[in-house]
Amino acid sequence: MAGSSFGTVFKITTWGESHGKGIGVVVDGCPAGLPLCEEDIQEYLDRRKPGQSKFTTQRREDDAVEILSGIFEGKTTGTPISMVVWNKDQKSKDYSEIASYYRPGHADYCFDEKYGFRDYRGGGRSSGRETIGRVAAGAIAAKLLKEMGISILTYTKSIGPVTVDSDRFRAEEINQNALFMPDAVAAQEATAYLEQCLSEKNSSGGVVECVVTGLPVGLGDPVFEKLDANLAKAIFSIGAVKGFEIGDGFDAACATGLTNNDAFCMDNGKISKRTNHSGGTLGGMSDGAPLVFRAAFKPTPSIAATQQTVNKSGEEIDISIHGRHDPIIVPRAVVVVEAMTALTLVDAMLLNMGAKLDSLVDFYE
Amino acid sequence: MAGSSFGTVFKITTWGESHGKGIGVVVDGCPAGLPLCEEDIQEYLDRRKPGQSKFTTQRREDDAVEILSGIFEGKTTGTPISMVVWNKDQKSKDYSEIASYYRPGHADYCFDEKYGFRDYRGGGRSSGRETIGRVAAGAIAAKLLKEMGISILTYTKSIGPVTVDSDRFRAEEINQNALFMPDAVAAQEATAYLEQCLSEKNSSGGVVECVVTGLPVGLGDPVFEKLDANLAKAIFSIGAVKGFEIGDGFDAACATGLTNNDAFCMDNGKISKRTNHSGGTLGGMSDGAPLVFRAAFKPTPSIAATQQTVNKSGEEIDISIHGRHDPIIVPRAVVVVEAMTALTLVDAMLLNMGAKLDSLVDFYE
Amino acid sequence: MAGSSFGTVFKITTWGESHGKGIGVVVDGCPAGLPLCEEDIQEYLDRRKPGQSKFTTQRREDDAVEILSGIFEGKTTGTPISMVVWNKDQKSKDYSEIASYYRPGHADYCFDEKYGFRDYRGGGRSSGRETIGRVAAGAIAAKLLKEMGISILTYTKSIGPVTVDSDRFRAEEINQNALFMPDAVAAQEATAYLEQCLSEKNSSGGVVECVVTGLPVGLGDPVFEKLDANLAKAIFSIGAVKGFEIGDGFDAACATGLTNNDAFCMDNGKISKRTNHSGGTLGGMSDGAPLVFRAAFKPTPSIAATQQTVNKSGEEIDISIHGRHDPIIVPRAVVVVEAMTALTLVDAMLLNMGAKLDSLVDFYE
Amino acid sequence: MAGSSFGTVFKITTWGESHGKGIGVVVDGCPAGLPLCEEDIQEYLDRRKPGQSKFTTQRREDDAVEILSGIFEGKTTGTPISMVVWNKDQKSKDYSEIASYYRPGHADYCFDEKYGFRDYRGGGRSSGRETIGRVAAGAIAAKLLKEMGISILTYTKSIGPVTVDSDRFRAEEINQNALFMPDAVAAQEATAYLEQCLSEKNSSGGVVECVVTGLPVGLGDPVFEKLDANLAKAIFSIGAVKGFEIGDGFDAACATGLTNNDAFCMDNGKISKRTNHSGGTLGGMSDGAPLVFRAAFKPTPSIAATQQTVNKSGEEIDISIHGRHDPIIVPRAVVVVEAMTALTLVDAMLLNMGAKLDSLVDFYE
Repeated sequence: MAGSSFGTVFKITTWGESHGKGIGVVVDGCPAGLPLCEEDIQEYLDRRKPGQSKFTTQRREDDAVEILSGIFEGKTTGTPISMVVWNKDQKSKDYSEIASYYRPGHADYCFDEKYGFRDYRGGGRSSGRETIGRVAAGAIAAKLLKEMGISILTYTKSIGPVTVDSDRFRAEEINQNALFMPDAVAAQEATAYLEQCLSEKNSSGGVVECVVTGLPVGLGDPVFEKLDANLAKAIFSIGAVKGFEIGDGFDAACATGLTNNDAFCMDNGKISKRTNHSGGTLGGMSDGAPLVFRAAFKPTPSIAATQQTVNKSGEEIDISIHGRHDPIIVPRAVVVVEAMTALTLVDAMLLNMGAKLDSLVDFYE
Repeated sequence: MAGSSFGTVFKITTWGESHGKGIGVVVDGCPAGLPLCEEDIQEYLDRRKPGQSKFTTQRREDDAVEILSGIFEGKTTGTPISMVVWNKDQKSKDYSEIASYYRPGHADYCFDEKYGFRDYRGGGRSSGRETIGRVAAGAIAAKLLKEMGISILTYTKSIGPVTVDSDRFRAEEINQNALFMPDAVAAQEATAYLEQCLSEKNSSGGVVECVVTGLPVGLGDPVFEKLDANLAKAIFSIGAVKGFEIGDGFDAACATGLTNNDAFCMDNGKISKRTNHSGGTLGGMSDGAPLVFRAAFKPTPSIAATQQTVNKSGEEIDISIHGRHDPIIVPRAVVVVEAMTALTLVDAMLLNMGAKLDSLVDFYE
Repeated sequence: MAGSSFGTVFKITTWGESHGKGIGVVVDGCPAGLPLCEEDIQEYLDRRKPGQSKFTTQRREDDAVEILSGIFEGKTTGTPISMVVWNKDQKSKDYSEIASYYRPGHADYCFDEKYGFRDYRGGGRSSGRETIGRVAAGAIAAKLLKEMGISILTYTKSIGPVTVDSDRFRAEEINQNALFMPDAVAAQEATAYLEQCLSEKNSSGGVVECVVTGLPVGLGDPVFEKLDANLAKAIFSIGAVKGFEIGDGFDAACATGLTNNDAFCMDNGKISKRTNHSGGTLGGMSDGAPLVFRAAFKPTPSIAATQQTVNKSGEEIDISIHGRHDPIIVPRAVVVVEAMTALTLVDAMLLNMGAKLDSLVDFYE
Repeated sequence: MAGSSFGTVFKITTWGESHGKGIGVVVDGCPAGLPLCEEDIQEYLDRRKPGQSKFTTQRREDDAVEILSGIFEGKTTGTPISMVVWNKDQKSKDYSEIASYYRPGHADYCFDEKYGFRDYRGGGRSSGRETIGRVAAGAIAAKLLKEMGISILTYTKSIGPVTVDSDRFRAEEINQNALFMPDAVAAQEATAYLEQCLSEKNSSGGVVECVVTGLPVGLGDPVFEKLDANLAKAIFSIGAVKGFEIGDGFDAACATGLTNNDAFCMDNGKISKRTNHSGGTLGGMSDGAPLVFRAAFKPTPSIAATQQTVNKSGEEIDISIHGRHDPIIVPRAVVVVEAMTALTLVDAMLLNMGAKLDSLVDFYE
C-alpha cells in the first residue's frame, strides 16, 4: 500500500534509500507565486546534515538539494515541485553480515516478513536519510507559513536525564550549540552525558519540543481531522518517535479541571487565555494560543556494545554493530519535527478556507 | 472540510449532535460474510452508556442501536452498514446562558471563530455523545479481528494520582468495577479520589492503556502510514486526549540503547523478542509482540466550581457550570480507545494484503 | 473496499438498499451558514420520485426526506448533515425465483462472485433507489452553487431514436412533460416510442445533457484532478451510464483543429470565446464558457420479454422479468446527473481556493 | 490543490514540464518481488517517443528512463519507485511571443487565471511530455497484470473520418504501421488524410480503443468506485480526451433492452455471456468478459493556419503557431491510454482483496 505520501491538498511524496542513487520528494499543491530557490531549501537541510558534531554520523554528505520542477522565474507555479539530494558517500562495504541477521530495535525483521526480503544496505528505506525529503518539503511549507505571519521554534528539550528547565530557556541559544538546546548549561551537561554513552558503546534518547505562534483560530476539522490528531500522526511518522503530547500532555492526566482549564480573558480587546495548559488547541482546533507539543525519541538502536539477536537461519547469536551512527537521534530530528509540523499546518490552513459560506462567497466574488 | 470520516478501505463516517435527533455512523468497506446483529453492537455500546455509576452523567439514555442497512440474512453484504442511536433524553432546558459565553477547556470559542456560530445545546457535535458512532463501528471491527485471532484488552491505567501497578494487574478485575481498572485496590482508591473531586466541584484526568495480542508481523506501511502513526491519529482524534505513547513511550527518551533495545530470540522455533520496550512496532510495522500503548486524558472541563471566562460581548465574567457531567472521562473512554484501535487495525490488515507479489498472484489464482 | 463516498473536502457517503429500512446519505464538509430545510431537499427528490408517469415504476413511495443532523436554527453548522428517506413500499413478495438466477444486464452475477452472496430483494444496493442519497446531497450542493451565481440546467436530450434538435430547444418546456425534454414535439414522439417499447415488453436507452453557467475560470487541477475527469467519474458512477462526452465529444474525433479550436475574443472588456466546441474546459480547467456535457444511458435491463440466462445450478434457462420497472431510465436520471454535477463542482470550488499565494495570504489577513 | 497523484493503494505522482530539467514519476504501493529493470520501462516509453514518423513532433528526445529508487537486486522492494526522463532537446528559442497571447484550444488562459501566471515554455506542465510519467508507471502496472494473466491491447480505432472496420481488424498489424492501426488499409487511408491535413496547416482528431482480457469477475466497488467510473476518470485525465464510452457506449442510448442485454450462458462449465454489449462491466464491476472501451481525442490545437485570439493586453489578434507539433495526437496517445488502464486495474485488484471475510481470514492464516 502506498505509504509515502502525506497531506491532503498540500501533499508530499518521498522516495529513496540510504544507499540508492538519492533521496527525493515531490511537493504537490503548493500555491503559485511563492518565491523559492534552492537556498531556501538548503538552509533547512543543513540543520540535519551529518558530520556537524561528534555525535552525528561521520558519513560525508553535503546534502545539496536540486530543484527539478515547479519553479518558473523564481516562483512556484502551482505545479509539482520535485527535489532531489543525490547520495554521494554510500560506502561499498560488505553488507553480507548485516544482511544475515536482525538488528534489535530496527525494522529488519518486519521488512523481511512484510515484503519477503529487504534492501539491507544502510537500512534501506528505513534509514534516517529518508527524512531528507520531509525536510526539503517542510522548508517550503515553513516559507508559506512565514508569509502568513506564522513562525515555528523547535529545539531539544531533553537528552537522557538532562532537561532544559523552562526558567533557563533562551531561544537565542538554540543555534549556539550542536545539540540545539535553548540552554547553554544543559547543553554542556548533555554533551558530557553523550560522551559517557559513547564511551560505553551505548546511545541515548531524548525529547524535542515545538512552539508555533501566529496561528489563526479554528484550524483543524472535527472530529477525525483534529489539528492535534494530524500533528500526532505527522510526528509519529518520524522513525524512533515513541510518544507525543500537547500542552500539559501526560501531566494533564494527573491534573484536575480547576488547574487544567485555561480561563478566557480579554487582552487588548481580543479574546485570549490566561494560561495555556491546552497547548493551543481546544476540541481539535487551534485556539489562538501558541501551539506547544513534545515528541519522545527512543535511543539510537545501533550501538557498538554486544547484543543478542537471531540470524536468518534461526540461530541465536551475539552481535555488535559498527558503523557511522549517531549516539543520539534528537538533535538532527529537531528540524524533521519542524518540517512535519509546517507540512501539517499548511494543509490545515488550506483545508480551512471553505469552513464558512460567507468566506466562500466573498472569495469567488 | 470533511472531517467526519476515518479509514481508507475500511472507512467510517459519523454524524450527530448531543441534542439533535440522534447519533449515527456509516461503516463502509466491511468484508462480506461477517455474521452481525444489533446485540454485537449493543454489547460494545453498553460499555460507554451513561448512568452506570455515580461518576457518569445522569442523562438517561439506553443508547439502543438500530442497524439500517448492509446486513442480509444475518450477515454483512459488503455494502455500507448504517447504524443509528436515537437521542431520547435531550432536555429542553434553557441554553441561552451557555450560548452567551465561552466555557474554559471547551471548543465553544473555536467553533464560533471557525464556523461563525455553533450549536450550543449540550456541546453540539463536540459532545462526548459523538463517540457513539465510533464505538458502534468499532464493535464491527473488533468482531472482524476476533475472526482472525486478534484480541484487544483496554482498561483504566490511572485516575489522577492513582495508578495500577503492573504487579497487581488482574485482567479479570476490569469489568468488576465501574472504573474499568484491572486492580480492585486501585479502583477503591480512585473511587475515593473521585468522590473528593466531586465534593470540591472539581474533576480528574487519567490514563487508558490498551494491549493487542495476536497481530501478524508487518502491519503498517512505511513511511507515513506507520501503524503507530495511524494509531496516534486515531487515539488523538478522541476528545480530551492530550498524550499518546507506545511501549516505553516517554520513558524511552530517558533510556539508553542497551536498555531499550529488545533482543530477538527463538521461541518454539519462531522468532520472538525477549522484552517489549518497543510496544509491538518496529519501523512503524507490527513486530509480532503485543501492541501496548497509553493515552492521557485531561480532566473533564465542565466543573461546578467557579471559573473565569469571557462572554460574547467581550466582558470578563465568572461562571459555574451545572449539568449532567462526568467528573472523569476515562472509564467511559476505555471502550472508545478500544474502538478506534480496532478500526485502525482492520484498515491496516486490509491495506497490507498487497505487500508481496507472491501473495497477490496466489490470491487471484 | 469503501466505495460509497464521493468528494474530497465536500464529501458524501451514501447507504441503503431497495428493500432495507431506508436510503440515506451523510454530507460532510458543507460550509457553515447555508440556510437549509427539508423542502430544499424535497424539491430535488421529487424530480426523481417514482409513479409520476406511466413510464416510471409504480412502486409507491413519497420519498419524504428527513434531516437528522447538521442544521441549527435553520442553517448548516459545518458538521455532517445526515439525511434519510425511509422505504415504505418494499413489497414482501417472494424473491426465491429471482434469487436463483442471474438477470441479464444486471449486477447479480458480479455481486455473487465478488461478495459470495447478494441481497437479491429488488436489486439490493444496485437498485435505482440508491440514487436517492446522491440527489439529496446534490440538492445541498446546488443550493451552494446558486449562492455563488452558478446554475445547472439538465434535461433529456434523446430517447432511443428521438433526439431534441438544438434549434427547437426550449428550456421552459423541460418541466412541462414527464420526460423532461426541452422540446414538446420530441417529447410526444418519444412518448409514442416508449409506448411501443412497452407493448413489446421492451425498454429504451437515451441521453441526458447538462449545461452549467456562471462558473469562474480555473476550476479543476492538473493533471489527474481535471474538472472533466472528475465529472466523467461522477457521471459514470451512476448505474446504466455507458458513455460520457464533453463539448463536441466524439464528434471532435472527426473534426480538424481549424473547426474544433475556439477562438478567444473580447466581449465587453472581458476575455471570452467565439464558440464552445470545448464544452467549457481547457486543459482540465473551466474556461469561463458554459460547461456542456452528455451522458449515454443504456436501456433498462429488466424487461418482460423472454430472455436467456443461467441459474445458480449452472443450467441455461429462459426467464421473463415482471415487476415495477421503468421502460426508460433517462427521465428520472436527469436530476441524478444534475446532483452529481453539483457535487463535483462544489468540491472543485473548495479545492481551488488555495491555488494562489496572494489569495491565501489575503484570506488569512 | 494536489492534482498530480493517481490511485489509492497503487499510487503514482508525476512531475515535470516540457522545458524543465526532466519529467518524472514516483510509483508507490507496488507489491514487492516484481522483477523490474529499465528495459521494462523503456519498451513502453519507446511507444510514445517523438520523431518516429512524419506525424510526430521532430523534437529529438531519446526519452531514456532512469530508475532512482525502489529496486534491489533486480526486484521491487515495496518502497517507492522513482523514475526520471531528463529533457534534452528543450530549445532555447524565444518564447516572448507565445507568452503574450492565449493559444486557442490550449490551457494558457486557464493557467493564468487560476495561478496568476504560467510557465509558457512549450506548454509547461500541460505539454504532452507530461504523459511520460504516466507511461513509465503504466509499464510497471502492465507487468504486474501480466503476472496475473491479464493482457491489454490498445490501438488507433479511427483518425478523422477513417475508421477501422471490425471485420478487417488484425491485431498483428498494430505495430506494423506508425499510426498503430490494426488494419493496413485504414492505416494507408489515414496517412493520406493526415498528409492532407498537414498540407492545409491543419490537424485531426481520432479514437483510441482498448481491450483487456483475463480479468477476474468483481473488480470495482459499488457505488462510486465503479470500475468504469475510475476508468472514465483515468482516461479523461489525459489531455485532449473529449469522450469516453464502454461497450456499446453511446450506441446503447439508441438500443433497446432486448438488443442490449447480454444473455448469460454456460461455456465449458463456466458462466459466460453470449454477447458483450456491456463491454465487460455490470453494475460497475468486471463481469468476466473482455473490457472494451474507447476514448475520443480532439485534434491537436497547435496548427500553422491563421487563427484569431486575444493577447494579454486584451487586443484581438491573428496568430499562426509554428513549432514541433504532431498533426494528430492519437498514435502517441495509444500507449498513454494503455498505461492509465493498467494503473486503474492494478489499483482495483489490490482494493478488491478484502471483499470477502473468507478470503481475508484465509490470507492471514
